[in-house]
Amino acid sequence: MGYTITEKIIKEHLAIGEMVRGTEIGITIDQTLTQDSTGTMAYLQFEAMEVPRVKTKRSVAYIDHNMLQTGPENMDDHRYIQTVAKKHGIYYSKPGNGICHQVTVERFGVPGQTLLGSDSHTPTAGGLGMLAIGAGGLDVAVAMAGGPYYITMPEIVKVELAGKLQPGVASKDIILEVLKRCTVKGGVNRVFEYVGEGVSSLTVPERATVTNMGAELGATTSIFPSDDITKAFLTAQERGEDFVPLEADEDAVYDLEIIVDLNALNALAACPHSPDNVKTIVELEGTKVDQIAIGSCTNSSYLDLMKAANILEGKTVSENVSLVIAPGSKQVLNMLAENGALAKLIDAGARILECGCGPCIGMGQSPNTSGVSLRTFNRNFKGRSGTVDADVYIVSPETAAVSAITGVITNPVTTIDPALLDIAIPEVFKVNDNMIVEPAPEGTQVDIVKGPNIKPFPETVKLQDAIAKKVLIIVEDNITTDHIMPSNAKLLPYRSNIPYLSDYCLTPCDVDFPQRAKDNGGGIIIAGHNYGQGSSREHAALAPLYLGIKAVVAKSFARIHKNNLINNGILPLVFKNEADYDTLELLDELTMEQVLDGVTKKEMTLHNATKGTFFDVIVDITDRQIDIIKAGGLINFMKMDR
Amino acid sequence: MGYTITEKIIKEHLAIGEMVRGTEIGITIDQTLTQDSTGTMAYLQFEAMEVPRVKTKRSVAYIDHNMLQTGPENMDDHRYIQTVAKKHGIYYSKPGNGICHQVTVERFGVPGQTLLGSDSHTPTAGGLGMLAIGAGGLDVAVAMAGGPYYITMPEIVKVELAGKLQPGVASKDIILEVLKRCTVKGGVNRVFEYVGEGVSSLTVPERATVTNMGAELGATTSIFPSDDITKAFLTAQERGEDFVPLEADEDAVYDLEIIVDLNALNALAACPHSPDNVKTIVELEGTKVDQIAIGSCTNSSYLDLMKAANILEGKTVSENVSLVIAPGSKQVLNMLAENGALAKLIDAGARILECGCGPCIGMGQSPNTSGVSLRTFNRNFKGRSGTVDADVYIVSPETAAVSAITGVITNPVTTIDPALLDIAIPEVFKVNDNMIVEPAPEGTQVDIVKGPNIKPFPETVKLQDAIAKKVLIIVEDNITTDHIMPSNAKLLPYRSNIPYLSDYCLTPCDVDFPQRAKDNGGGIIIAGHNYGQGSSREHAALAPLYLGIKAVVAKSFARIHKNNLINNGILPLVFKNEADYDTLELLDELTMEQVLDGVTKKEMTLHNATKGTFFDVIVDITDRQIDIIKAGGLINFMKMDR
Repeated sequence: MGYTITEKIIKEHLAIGEMVRGTEIGITIDQTLTQDSTGTMAYLQFEAMEVPRVKTKRSVAYIDHNMLQTGPENMDDHRYIQTVAKKHGIYYSKPGNGICHQVTVERFGVPGQTLLGSDSHTPTAGGLGMLAIGAGGLDVAVAMAGGPYYITMPEIVKVELAGKLQPGVASKDIILEVLKRCTVKGGVNRVFEYVGEGVSSLTVPERATVTNMGAELGATTSIFPSDDITKAFLTAQERGEDFVPLEADEDAVYDLEIIVDLNALNALAACPHSPDNVKTIVELEGTKVDQIAIGSCTNSSYLDLMKAANILEGKTVSENVSLVIAPGSKQVLNMLAENGALAKLIDAGARILECGCGPCIGMGQSPNTSGVSLRTFNRNFKGRSGTVDADVYIVSPETAAVSAITGVITNPVTTIDPALLDIAIPEVFKVNDNMIVEPAPEGTQVDIVKGPNIKPFPETVKLQDAIAKKVLIIVEDNITTDHIMPSNAKLLPYRSNIPYLSDYCLTPCDVDFPQRAKDNGGGIIIAGHNYGQGSSREHAALAPLYLGIKAVVAKSFARIHKNNLINNGILPLVFKNEADYDTLELLDELTMEQVLDGVTKKEMTLHNATKGTFFDVIVDITDRQIDIIKAGGLINFMKMDR
Repeated sequence: MGYTITEKIIKEHLAIGEMVRGTEIGITIDQTLTQDSTGTMAYLQFEAMEVPRVKTKRSVAYIDHNMLQTGPENMDDHRYIQTVAKKHGIYYSKPGNGICHQVTVERFGVPGQTLLGSDSHTPTAGGLGMLAIGAGGLDVAVAMAGGPYYITMPEIVKVELAGKLQPGVASKDIILEVLKRCTVKGGVNRVFEYVGEGVSSLTVPERATVTNMGAELGATTSIFPSDDITKAFLTAQERGEDFVPLEADEDAVYDLEIIVDLNALNALAACPHSPDNVKTIVELEGTKVDQIAIGSCTNSSYLDLMKAANILEGKTVSENVSLVIAPGSKQVLNMLAENGALAKLIDAGARILECGCGPCIGMGQSPNTSGVSLRTFNRNFKGRSGTVDADVYIVSPETAAVSAITGVITNPVTTIDPALLDIAIPEVFKVNDNMIVEPAPEGTQVDIVKGPNIKPFPETVKLQDAIAKKVLIIVEDNITTDHIMPSNAKLLPYRSNIPYLSDYCLTPCDVDFPQRAKDNGGGIIIAGHNYGQGSSREHAALAPLYLGIKAVVAKSFARIHKNNLINNGILPLVFKNEADYDTLELLDELTMEQVLDGVTKKEMTLHNATKGTFFDVIVDITDRQIDIIKAGGLINFMKMDR
């Protein structure tokens, strides 16, 4: 029996376990990446592990999130990351060098290797045939220290691309079609492998658009083969030596199969407020638009912006539209500045933003109240733009650019001269890595600079055998990491300051929660189903940890957040009988006895001392995690291990 | 007796009064400009005047301050300004089109005309031979409605420029030299006129750098002749028809004279924390730098950035320096993108920001804690960068660019090949005004869009004849408008929301002041000397007005702020005997009787009902202002007038 691409890479990197679907495996990590909003914490944790030098083939620290710098916090964080990177053998990509995923594809990604990144869009590098996975910062720190990364051995979905895209339809529309069919929950514990004749008509940046937004499926990752197109791309990036051919065996067995007929595909849009709320542009034509944004790790490549430049050449952006363009990298911006395409965009009336995540993460360019914003980004969750009642549509650069001229949602298929979209990958990209700072040679003295905004992460203690704490909050189903640890332009600069952030923990649910936690010396969170869904942000565990949360008792947990709780020594407990949820009230005192024994047996009984009742919970952890939770979290565990 | 340039223009525009030094005159205004942080309020006030169409030759509304858009407030304000402008005959410069002063010089400024702008750097257009003055938003609104602008007939200072700048010394160094000699207080009620052989070696953008930063002298304005260089510049901007020659008569009489020998001038820097704290670069050479910023209305012209591009070509920005460049206008950015200069800057590792004020007003790019930042801007007040303990040095683009390479303050005179700085004004600038929206034809129905952040300005009532209010705060000497109405990246988006802003009024002096004012139903402010120094921001009067402040009793007032108080119906009272300041205590109840009569007589007696004492004050207003203050402010007065 042959192997899929995914299986081939996992097989090469399998450190622990067997390639049996649904079981836990540990894989070795070749490369890591961090961005600055998760990076400061990841490096503080890495420092705590006392490993002098990263053990990966390459680790890169990017600055791409906090680039507005409306106070000293951002640049303080940049300085910390720059110096900690230099000391420990990590490459540092300066602010302005570009978005981590775009730069990874251009400069560092290697087919067949594994990449772990503290950003949920790390799968972008799957466009190069890399097994690239997003994770919490602590997991990335562990990988930098040489530890394996644990995942559930995924199911593998074959996405057969038949035919060829018609002009005006983009690779963005492929992933929107997949999202439409599979939904934002359709990818959990699955890898999406793209195969078929359609693959050979897609350039690497187009493939990367698809794998990037595969994150919106909830997938473990997405991946393309590494083929002649990959080779040509890497060669044009002056790194042909990184090329390795990689394809699925002919007799590879997939768990599921989807066929997308590219010939029949239309221009699409994800409508407010979910990436899987997909309609055809034809259905939306004529909708008045206030703002258009081209960029983000999904669609900010040289090809994307060249298309936009050709479409906008000699035209004028509609009077009532603000068009902003954020190039994905210095390489992209530099090439457009050299070849005149940037001048075309500026001439038409586009606003050129810095090379960074920018408006995609709500760092600037929030639309007007109730505004309509067309964006080439990957997520259109309510409020993510910074404007809670804005309607954000996710579209291709083609749709965005042509709509900028008309001021209404416009169909690129029927309005754009196909010749304008016929852009080849350059034979040679402009390579100048002078915004990437190399690490110091091993043994060099490097002073790490920590500004006043950088606070130590909260320390944990070994799991206690008896716990008596009050219920501090009772929340409902589907609480997201945005509820637990809000992230916006005002709070994002404080990602390295857990004490500050903790004052906003769970405040979207109950504004008094942080103070109540402090008043009661910590306590317990009660939750419904799917607690902690959304991003991988570890801050959603670190802030509760800082507030003294000992356990979360929920009907069920989202996977990554549960791991983040365990990694930080907080007990994830699941109601054995969901009806017990309804018996609990705010400030009920819950006591747990023989906790260590309960963790080993993965079940225990809680006593509601206030009500005089008892209820059973499952300790929702794997065998591997028993020792981690007893140690009080992963860092303590790793220290014990040495 | 001949006339100076200033006198020639004033004579042409004199509506009220005589050209007698020190007396109040009213001049007609040809053009107005607003920027968005003062503009929303100015247009709300203009609307309140119920004048259907502006009566100026040209009025332009720029968006250049609030462009980060970290929430809906900014774009809501942009939409309001866009629609109100369209309705009332005002040109609208979209965000991204550039900084108001740079665009004025390029596209709208006319020698010999008057310009009133709601921004303190409006004198920039003096580089074109325009009499350009900064004022509060309400004054600009009055000018749009056709009213004259009142100033004290200024003294006129002749600044004789002898010789020619040596390569590496810039026009920035001229104004730094003038600031060094005259200090930030040296320009009050004065106009600085630049004459002499050195003038003919300075291009219009270089002249505009000098007049721009003349604002730092506290001057009414600064002005250059309009000569062949002006004509060539206007012709290259495709508006040769706007040229008018203008120079001082040979027998013109000046009040003061300064001679600056350009041959002997060195590269200079304004050191922390004042624009007049000037040292030579030689004295500062070798100082380690964290950040360098090129841009702002002072130094963001085509010439400035071409110099920077030539200096940085083929080089790399120092590893430890973040270099940010904000071009002054779309025209500048577009030309650099077309001629390859932008590519050189990007290649070297510069971060390209949007065309706007940006870091100069603390909107982004705050330095690291205790960081050293070299900036080509005009102000380096403590904390203005957004980092309270940063050391900001004001330098020329030449000094900034060469220091970016070395990472330390570096002398451009000794290190830059003069050939790199030999840049001519283009024979033709790229003219494409497609980001300037023309007003609708008169009579067109235009709906004005007001987002929820746009609150009505507080209304005033006629002056009451008896006032009894408590002392709400007692502040010391030199309280600035930054104390009265703080302005930073967090508050600047709320410039159209006085109720929100008022909660921060005077909080740098006393965090409880806003609540105390509310609890007591308004009251009285007691202050020392020079109350209200700093910017022209009218919000420093509007927020106290909203909080119910009826009078400010001070030892003395700064000129513009005093006018803003009067314009908003707040009594500016001056202690007749300064020692009475010391008799007052917080929450003392002050009563004033026969107030109307006192205003007419310009003096009255206050009764401290708490202490049982009396003290005399001078009502510090001109004859013209008596009716304004009695009407409850300028808008009420204007309404009565019709």
